Amino acid sequence: MNIIGKKVKRIDGFQKAIGAAKYASDYYFHNMLYAGVVYANVPHGILKKIDVSKAYELPGVVYIATYKDVPGTNKFGHIIKDMNFLVPVGEKVRFEGDVIALVAAETKEIAEQAVKLVEFEIEQLPSVLTIEEALKDETIVNGSSNIGFHRKIRRGNVDKAFNDADLILEMEFETGYQEHAYLEPQGAVAYFTPENIMEIYVSSQCPFYVHEDIANILNLPLNKINVIQTETGGGFGGKEDVPSYIASKPALLSYLTKRPVKLIYTREMDIKETSKRHPSKSYYKVAFKKDGTILGVKSRTYLDMGAYSTLSPIVMYRTTVHSCSTYKVPNVHVDVYGIYTNKVPCGAFRGFGSPQVLFAMESIIDEAAKKLGIDPYEIRLKNTLEVGDETATGHKLTHSVGAKKTLEKVFEMSNYPKLKKKVEEFNKQNQYKKLGIGWSHIFYGVSLGAGGQHLDGASAEVHVHPDGTINVMIGNTEMGQGAKTTMAIIVSEILGQDVSKINILQPQTLVVQDSGPTVASRTTFFSGNAVKIASEKIKTNIVEFLSGYFGVGKKEIEFKNGKVLIREKELSFNEVANLCNKNNVKLSEFGWYKTPKLHFDHETGTGEAYIAYTFSTQLSLVEVDLLTGKVDLKEAWVCHDIGKVINYDGAVGQVHGGVIQGMGYAIMEEIIQDNGKILTNNFNNYIIPTIKDIPANIHVDFVESEFKEGPFGAKGLGEPSLMSSPPSIANAISNAINKRINKIPVSMNDLILKNKEEGII
Amino acid sequence: MNIIGKKVKRIDGFQKAIGAAKYASDYYFHNMLYAGVVYANVPHGILKKIDVSKAYELPGVVYIATYKDVPGTNKFGHIIKDMNFLVPVGEKVRFEGDVIALVAAETKEIAEQAVKLVEFEIEQLPSVLTIEEALKDETIVNGSSNIGFHRKIRRGNVDKAFNDADLILEMEFETGYQEHAYLEPQGAVAYFTPENIMEIYVSSQCPFYVHEDIANILNLPLNKINVIQTETGGGFGGKEDVPSYIASKPALLSYLTKRPVKLIYTREMDIKETSKRHPSKSYYKVAFKKDGTILGVKSRTYLDMGAYSTLSPIVMYRTTVHSCSTYKVPNVHVDVYGIYTNKVPCGAFRGFGSPQVLFAMESIIDEAAKKLGIDPYEIRLKNTLEVGDETATGHKLTHSVGAKKTLEKVFEMSNYPKLKKKVEEFNKQNQYKKLGIGWSHIFYGVSLGAGGQHLDGASAEVHVHPDGTINVMIGNTEMGQGAKTTMAIIVSEILGQDVSKINILQPQTLVVQDSGPTVASRTTFFSGNAVKIASEKIKTNIVEFLSGYFGVGKKEIEFKNGKVLIREKELSFNEVANLCNKNNVKLSEFGWYKTPKLHFDHETGTGEAYIAYTFSTQLSLVEVDLLTGKVDLKEAWVCHDIGKVINYDGAVGQVHGGVIQGMGYAIMEEIIQDNGKILTNNFNNYIIPTIKDIPANIHVDFVESEFKEGPFGAKGLGEPSLMSSPPSIANAISNAINKRINKIPVSMNDLILKNKEEGII
Repeated sequence: MNIIGKKVKRIDGFQKAIGAAKYASDYYFHNMLYAGVVYANVPHGILKKIDVSKAYELPGVVYIATYKDVPGTNKFGHIIKDMNFLVPVGEKVRFEGDVIALVAAETKEIAEQAVKLVEFEIEQLPSVLTIEEALKDETIVNGSSNIGFHRKIRRGNVDKAFNDADLILEMEFETGYQEHAYLEPQGAVAYFTPENIMEIYVSSQCPFYVHEDIANILNLPLNKINVIQTETGGGFGGKEDVPSYIASKPALLSYLTKRPVKLIYTREMDIKETSKRHPSKSYYKVAFKKDGTILGVKSRTYLDMGAYSTLSPIVMYRTTVHSCSTYKVPNVHVDVYGIYTNKVPCGAFRGFGSPQVLFAMESIIDEAAKKLGIDPYEIRLKNTLEVGDETATGHKLTHSVGAKKTLEKVFEMSNYPKLKKKVEEFNKQNQYKKLGIGWSHIFYGVSLGAGGQHLDGASAEVHVHPDGTINVMIGNTEMGQGAKTTMAIIVSEILGQDVSKINILQPQTLVVQDSGPTVASRTTFFSGNAVKIASEKIKTNIVEFLSGYFGVGKKEIEFKNGKVLIREKELSFNEVANLCNKNNVKLSEFGWYKTPKLHFDHETGTGEAYIAYTFSTQLSLVEVDLLTGKVDLKEAWVCHDIGKVINYDGAVGQVHGGVIQGMGYAIMEEIIQDNGKILTNNFNNYIIPTIKDIPANIHVDFVESEFKEGPFGAKGLGEPSLMSSPPSIANAISNAINKRINKIPVSMNDLILKNKEEGII
Repeated sequence: MNIIGKKVKRIDGFQKAIGAAKYASDYYFHNMLYAGVVYANVPHGILKKIDVSKAYELPGVVYIATYKDVPGTNKFGHIIKDMNFLVPVGEKVRFEGDVIALVAAETKEIAEQAVKLVEFEIEQLPSVLTIEEALKDETIVNGSSNIGFHRKIRRGNVDKAFNDADLILEMEFETGYQEHAYLEPQGAVAYFTPENIMEIYVSSQCPFYVHEDIANILNLPLNKINVIQTETGGGFGGKEDVPSYIASKPALLSYLTKRPVKLIYTREMDIKETSKRHPSKSYYKVAFKKDGTILGVKSRTYLDMGAYSTLSPIVMYRTTVHSCSTYKVPNVHVDVYGIYTNKVPCGAFRGFGSPQVLFAMESIIDEAAKKLGIDPYEIRLKNTLEVGDETATGHKLTHSVGAKKTLEKVFEMSNYPKLKKKVEEFNKQNQYKKLGIGWSHIFYGVSLGAGGQHLDGASAEVHVHPDGTINVMIGNTEMGQGAKTTMAIIVSEILGQDVSKINILQPQTLVVQDSGPTVASRTTFFSGNAVKIASEKIKTNIVEFLSGYFGVGKKEIEFKNGKVLIREKELSFNEVANLCNKNNVKLSEFGWYKTPKLHFDHETGTGEAYIAYTFSTQLSLVEVDLLTGKVDLKEAWVCHDIGKVINYDGAVGQVHGGVIQGMGYAIMEEIIQDNGKILTNNFNNYIIPTIKDIPANIHVDFVESEFKEGPFGAKGLGEPSLMSSPPSIANAISNAINKRINKIPVSMNDLILKNKEEGII
């Protein structure tokens, strides 16, 4: 490999560092209007009346749009269209963030004022605010039952497993919301041009979702809409389906006014309206043999979907598949339920329904180890998946299974036996400060899997200019994860051109084919493959030409370090590009990649759930202050098997970010609500990790069990980097305080109360 | 054929008719500046000094750029870089439109004022204003001699031809300037974005030329420049190389200010600075046998290039090749010279150096017919090229030679014998009004030929959306000629989708590969082929999928009228697109087309000059008022062999436009200069044909001698549609007044003077 796996400076870093990168809020169009959003602000009710007359009296108000102005469908919903774009009079409001009207005004300030002048009446209904309340089905939030969806796995004979067990553990777990807290809030600028082309500049992970939704809302053909992804300051799943709801607002207003319209969310709007990670309740019963072998898992998990289904049904697919963590479990009986409540809808969030159950299962493993007197490391080693094993869904793994190696590497990296001793000694010497160490060992199904195979194709366009510089356009997005650098590395590996000469364009949906969403750790794998195919085609075109032009064999031509070696001749890649251009060699190519078909039985929840799996191990060292309840993640050792590492620095960065975001989820971040209204609506009260909270050392290493379908053997890393963190930290806290943590976020108050109750302080 | 050759409504017509199409002047960016241009305004001199201090004092002036501000090369010139972008102090000014400085200001009005405040000194030199003056080489305009270039054909033995001749005609001809008079003047908006991407929105025929030139001027890599062709309101060659000079101005100012900068030319600036059709002088000596057979041609043509070479060397290539018109001429001795003068540079104009010599040769043919007592139709029929014949350059024509058929068709269409009689009778009955009829029989080498093969490739991107609507991006441009409709017809023919569902995007040079210039009647042929290839690839992808999905043979699948027939099943194309999308079928494809290699000896000017030739015949009926000198084109009959006609209405439209623009060249349009300064600098004094001047009937028909390399057998039509007109009209006037016209434009004054001299009036 020339460059793959080496340290490469992030290609979009400098522009971002100096503030030159252009985010949605940096777009200003001539004659642009500003949008305002009128929210329902009640959790449940019937909209009786809207009166926009007072708002229209305000000078500078150009348009106030209600449901009557929507030319196409007024519904959203990626899987079920159950959410109104603008609530019609006579229909239900289901959460505080339902939208009644939109305002377009000459300035942002006027738009904000006008929002307050739009009058409307809602007849309030009783609201359903918890999973428990919802399950009673007394008040129905949405559809015909508050249990919106059910997914399951039925495999083996779980009753027999419990009969045969030496140890049965029954435990309950609870997890809270998590807000994506991307640095850049949601936003879009729409311009319905005089030529009737709807241009959407949007901060987004999935411009093709926006493209399709805008077409439906405005009843426009797809070839008259261009969604241009702007630089995107973080997504984490929060910019998967949500940007459709955001962008549709200025799009409708622009459609109506034929002027550009801008809408940038405040943090408060963003936290109020946009989706979160699902809170959950899980009930687990797990059977073990004396030696720690897992015999069976029976689990029931409830995900709080909030008011609308959004992406919940596919989030639940992932919850189901990941319910038994990374282990050989022959007997599986898993149920996952999606529950409607009158709260903010929950949807995609890095990990996508799996952190909830991984926390449960990894806690139980630790608890079993304790009960059986086995080291938490050893019990994982015993049960982990290896080549030839089957996952909980019965997917037989043929290759690229580095799970065990990730355990062994973390064992080595951390010098585990010595670390254990250090912790023991510290705890002996300290009464109110306790250290704890905790393992997690997780896996992650790469890409959309059998639940979303219809979206699993990706397109890339590679274009070599006559001066040797290169443009690439992919259909997946850079949102901070380093995708652009990864793509540039792949092109560079094949064509030998320096990454500094490779420019990755922002996606335009009119130009590049629908490449599915940028989620599920699929960009390196999908777009990477597409970029590889396109680059190789161009290489073939060039080699064929050079071979004829210089009269040398094709195998005598090599691309490396910005040079092209042609038998004994050496030309720069730039010179070759120029020569090719003059000779009309085709220097633009599309690459298209789609996965082989997966076989999965949705009825039993068994089969090939995902194309490939990553495997990860984390060991965390925490310090708990028993007096204040404060938890510090002191150090973490993390190893991921992501197949071939393409962008080494990017991969390390992902792990750092993931560990920290997972830490926020585990110990810091909490959404507080009052009658469905989110009170923690900015970063002064919704507390996320800052530079001051991160551990001094996050030790990162990789196992490279290459996956044969991946580009150069790569799998993916976006999500597992977060997923290993919460269970590892929770286990470490449990270890420190010698009590099982069964609820995250672990709250400082809870810890203090517990300590007081138990007379420790 | 489903749709090819049928009448199809122009797809971009409605938006243009209602004023919604967005031209360069319709682009407004936030925070945009306006550019002004400081001209030398003298024909020849040395720039001694520039002083911008006064101009800077004007409030609202943001930047004044001189040669010192240019970060890259300061030179233009597509073939020889002999023209300064901004004239440096100490260097020469060579014509009134040389540029001294550029102004960027907050408003257009301030920019205009500031232009007047920039002070500079030029030491004037004697100026060279005519071909005759230039040939003396006393004052050198540019380079080392005023004869900048020389091209020739040497074939057979021309001296022997003259010895064997029964009739030798020696004649001189002169042609004037022609201004392109596109409705939309030149203009561009440039924005050097914070991400260091130079975006150029420009009215242009050749966005790739702009791309390359901006890269050189600003020293930017090609992958950091995006040239977006805006709707373009006419080009006619005038927007081939020139838009580089236009767009570089706001580009430099935007580079320096980091703000968007707009520059839209006034008509006066446009006529002053931008290129025109070359004025010419030709000296012909042609040998005939008694029966009218042409034995040889010896010619010498001078083209007045003005101050800079621009595209003249390749214009001269075409002049050379077309010097003997459409006839079998075994002995050829052609010389063409490009001459520098201190006037506006001349360059590309529809026909590109050939109308000048076609006028000469077609006049001589008529004169010979008269002298030999042969009908002008018959002498053409005798000499015209047929399959198996060789052109004047010795290119043996193997197929697709419909020349003779175009003559025969015009003979029939016009009912020639009856028309002749009608004219004779009219002229007998009228003393001061005379009718005249005149033939022309011309050919045209399609595309760039052996002189520009390095540019003869073209790219197209076709993209089917999930709702069945289609986007196409080609690298050639729509500038009014109907290219978008032609491309949509080709896609529709292959995929069966209705043209109303097919959207042709404006080219973006970051997205589509360099497809050469949009000139030389090459768009249908090149982009048409590329679009055809891409559409066929998509069709193959779809057929392969459908065949597997429905279990039918590939040959059982047919695309027609918006439907796809799959054995007995019928789905709409929209449904098929949706199904394909859900199954990850590749629905985006590039097509790339390049021509087979041509063999041409540039030393002797012999060989395969062009890939294919169109053949055209025009018969014009004019009425000349001997008292006022007014000439009216009453009626014209035109037949072109353009191979397969793809866009029938578009083709007819091209012929109408070409006949009229050719008429303007022949009898109306005149550039008047005073010491190198153009006085006729707007349409109040530079008179072009209006709706009131056009003939009542232009009868159009086509011969479809299919060319095997063309898409569905098509060749091209853009330029020949003009070229047939001037010689036919000139011959008709000669016929009417019974005197040879050897100078165009035929001026009313000249005619009156001549009539007075000869006592006719």
